[in-house]
Amino acid sequence: RPTHRRPSRRSGAGLVAAGGLSSLASVVESQQFDRPMLEELFEVAREMERITEDGSECKILAGKVMGTLFYEPSTRTRLSFETAMCRLGGKVVSTENAREFSSVAKGETLEDTIRTLEQYVDVVVLRHFQAGSARIAADAASVPLISAGDGPGQHPTQALLDIYTIQKEIGRVDDTKVALVGDLANGRTARSLAYILSKFRNVKLYFVAPDVARINEDIKEHLTECGCEWEEVDNLQSVASEVDVLYQTRIQKERYGDRPEDYEKAQGKFIVDEDLMRLMKQDAVVMHPLPRVGEITPQVDADPRAAYFRQAKNGLYIRMALLATLLKGK
Amino acid sequence: RPTHRRPSRRSGAGLVAAGGLSSLASVVESQQFDRPMLEELFEVAREMERITEDGSECKILAGKVMGTLFYEPSTRTRLSFETAMCRLGGKVVSTENAREFSSVAKGETLEDTIRTLEQYVDVVVLRHFQAGSARIAADAASVPLISAGDGPGQHPTQALLDIYTIQKEIGRVDDTKVALVGDLANGRTARSLAYILSKFRNVKLYFVAPDVARINEDIKEHLTECGCEWEEVDNLQSVASEVDVLYQTRIQKERYGDRPEDYEKAQGKFIVDEDLMRLMKQDAVVMHPLPRVGEITPQVDADPRAAYFRQAKNGLYIRMALLATLLKGK
Amino acid sequence: RPTHRRPSRRSGAGLVAAGGLSSLASVVESQQFDRPMLEELFEVAREMERITEDGSECKILAGKVMGTLFYEPSTRTRLSFETAMCRLGGKVVSTENAREFSSVAKGETLEDTIRTLEQYVDVVVLRHFQAGSARIAADAASVPLISAGDGPGQHPTQALLDIYTIQKEIGRVDDTKVALVGDLANGRTARSLAYILSKFRNVKLYFVAPDVARINEDIKEHLTECGCEWEEVDNLQSVASEVDVLYQTRIQKERYGDRPEDYEKAQGKFIVDEDLMRLMKQDAVVMHPLPRVGEITPQVDADPRAAYFRQAKNGLYIRMALLATLLKGK
Repeated sequence: RPTHRRPSRRSGAGLVAAGGLSSLASVVESQQFDRPMLEELFEVAREMERITEDGSECKILAGKVMGTLFYEPSTRTRLSFETAMCRLGGKVVSTENAREFSSVAKGETLEDTIRTLEQYVDVVVLRHFQAGSARIAADAASVPLISAGDGPGQHPTQALLDIYTIQKEIGRVDDTKVALVGDLANGRTARSLAYILSKFRNVKLYFVAPDVARINEDIKEHLTECGCEWEEVDNLQSVASEVDVLYQTRIQKERYGDRPEDYEKAQGKFIVDEDLMRLMKQDAVVMHPLPRVGEITPQVDADPRAAYFRQAKNGLYIRMALLATLLKGK
Repeated sequence: RPTHRRPSRRSGAGLVAAGGLSSLASVVESQQFDRPMLEELFEVAREMERITEDGSECKILAGKVMGTLFYEPSTRTRLSFETAMCRLGGKVVSTENAREFSSVAKGETLEDTIRTLEQYVDVVVLRHFQAGSARIAADAASVPLISAGDGPGQHPTQALLDIYTIQKEIGRVDDTKVALVGDLANGRTARSLAYILSKFRNVKLYFVAPDVARINEDIKEHLTECGCEWEEVDNLQSVASEVDVLYQTRIQKERYGDRPEDYEKAQGKFIVDEDLMRLMKQDAVVMHPLPRVGEITPQVDADPRAAYFRQAKNGLYIRMALLATLLKGK
Repeated sequence: RPTHRRPSRRSGAGLVAAGGLSSLASVVESQQFDRPMLEELFEVAREMERITEDGSECKILAGKVMGTLFYEPSTRTRLSFETAMCRLGGKVVSTENAREFSSVAKGETLEDTIRTLEQYVDVVVLRHFQAGSARIAADAASVPLISAGDGPGQHPTQALLDIYTIQKEIGRVDDTKVALVGDLANGRTARSLAYILSKFRNVKLYFVAPDVARINEDIKEHLTECGCEWEEVDNLQSVASEVDVLYQTRIQKERYGDRPEDYEKAQGKFIVDEDLMRLMKQDAVVMHPLPRVGEITPQVDADPRAAYFRQAKNGLYIRMALLATLLKGK
């Protein structure tokens, strides 16, 4: 009688990923990716671009089924993953209301839910509201699992698509100057990007945040340890003319519930508009994880240096690359 | 560096559609379709019927992905569009809760949502609760967009499937007598059908509505201007024996919140039952956009002139025809 | 003019199923399946296992579309059906919020909803909250319909997967001893399994339930009539060493709203843990319809006799077998 799981495919091994990208078993945090793995991943992502642009039917994952299990809504991320699977020829079964998943209401553990779902599908994409859930789920799973964000924890595919966008837009990640702007206290994307940038050579980071939303000490300490230069500045204009990448983020209103005046002050402080674009270098780019509210004006959209919608598209390529890597040959 | 949109595919041009059906870029209102375009569309719809009845796998849109973005629930319309895409060999990613789309809650504009979604998919099907939203979205989109209804505004694919059903059931649209019955004040389908019928020759329209739900003056004026004959009548029996098409509609209870006695009076006034069917011509048909409540009795269903479920099926063919037209060769 | 339904495919005939599995038109209750049909179905399910394990793209239902219409959430069952369709090469359109289906809110009957949906899709999978709904829907449908559970009524595919699991794990169903444990009053799975087991030879059933959750008289009478031996016992330990199958079920907390102390007493009474496993035979198995709460401890999962996740996978195969049977050649 067969056992119900194959220990050789347990994700524990994959989290270490000693053998590079091909040994990857699950994706739960961006720290799993060292620099050679990132470069391998980018190579696969470029192949995914060629497949997508070609437009003809792709069969790489024909016969495979992905299950999306979202415990909180994130339609943008969900549709990106689901389209990625479709474009590789795979199929998708999906729930965006997993929190109302009847069995969760009845007291089922996340582990049991995962171990039931893996009986059906070949790969699980999990979005959860609790930090650490992705790791728990990956440990329980005998099929590959990709985290689509676990609450205040990690959102690894966002960090990967951000760094891929820099590579693609600027032509390099080493030897770049990057300004992280906006809500650096609450936005996990800026934090994750700072971490992943520290793996590259000669990157200088500028932190440009309102007083109420400054980046945490732990990241600054980490960068210093890695020998990555950083500076906190209060003048977006002066930085704009210096940098290769201006990474703008939304002030997260939902974190300022009891401090509306703090939100208003923070929201209006650093706006990317046509005036600011005039200060930027001709080969620099503006990025944003989206959605935006007013921190980049719509007039900037027509500027070829506005990279944020292309950045969203890179999310598709990165997710295709991860799915193809995890499932090919299985 | 490529710009993020290709102006040549902007929908603005498509709304004019000077070059007939092949120049169609988006579908936001039934006025986009002149008579030659309707005839072209019906020809494609007939081809879609052949494909569907054949039953073997169709690959016309293999490799293409449709995104359904529904800001209010309309399961019937959504499943019709999604099945249409599936039957053409394409794939679907979907949200029926777009209003809770996390980024909308965070303040994202419809334009930004569309310009993110178009990074993933090849065509967007939009249902929105605000009149005019479909046009705004189509203008923002660089991929084709089809409106699945925008609130009290337009529901163009319903009008197209209605006119296609008349053509198919009666064998012609010119030289027909059509009775529009029921809630002519609130139902947008009856209004839209009246507009589109005015493009045909020698059509006579009868409006049969309770006093509280009579058709608006603007439509009567439009018909008079077009030289389309119309008449308001109060006796369904006398009209029933005259017409080729009896188009029944539901009294929209939700519009009579503070006037329950008006609703009751209107609801019971014009019922299509077996007695009424006996008065109708043998080659006439009964249509209804569905859902019905009690305005057509279930006993009528077995009558071969009851065309309303076939009408629903024609919705599938029309949506397949639109998807094939918008996406083929792209 | 064609009529809108083909009477020859009406499900009425299928419910009798005089001609064995090939004459099956819809699945609404487990009583439709006599023993030869079960054996045919299991043969198809084994073929489905081979197809799934093979991993290459299957085209058996290519070109076919399944519509899932869920009036109450049951993500586990829904994803199982949807994956089954995907693995056969078919496509899926889906709603898990059919109760908010706009047309239901407007007063549409279930029959009309089904007769609209069948214009689009080739097979309907229905989950409903009212007993008897599946039969009503199947009678209205001119395409095959599979019930995914109708409230306190039937959940036929669960019963089928349970009996298939016994056949597969034990190698036979005849000549087995089966203990049904837990909430035998409220759980429809235990009731259905008892009924279906009565079709086999020399099966002995043990009912092991807390006093507040004992099995109903009607089932005991039915078993006695069929000549199927049964016994109510209060000692799980003594039974554990006897049986080939220990079928554990969850105490349904939601049924004890006004009697929390009854729930607590019932919940803690019969636990399957490592101590109990030591009493069981080496070739016996533990089954559970899932989700579980605490009635099987997680330590049991590693025991090869813990069959409950394999049981979930068998649900996939049984649903694939039913879909293939209902749709092949259509």
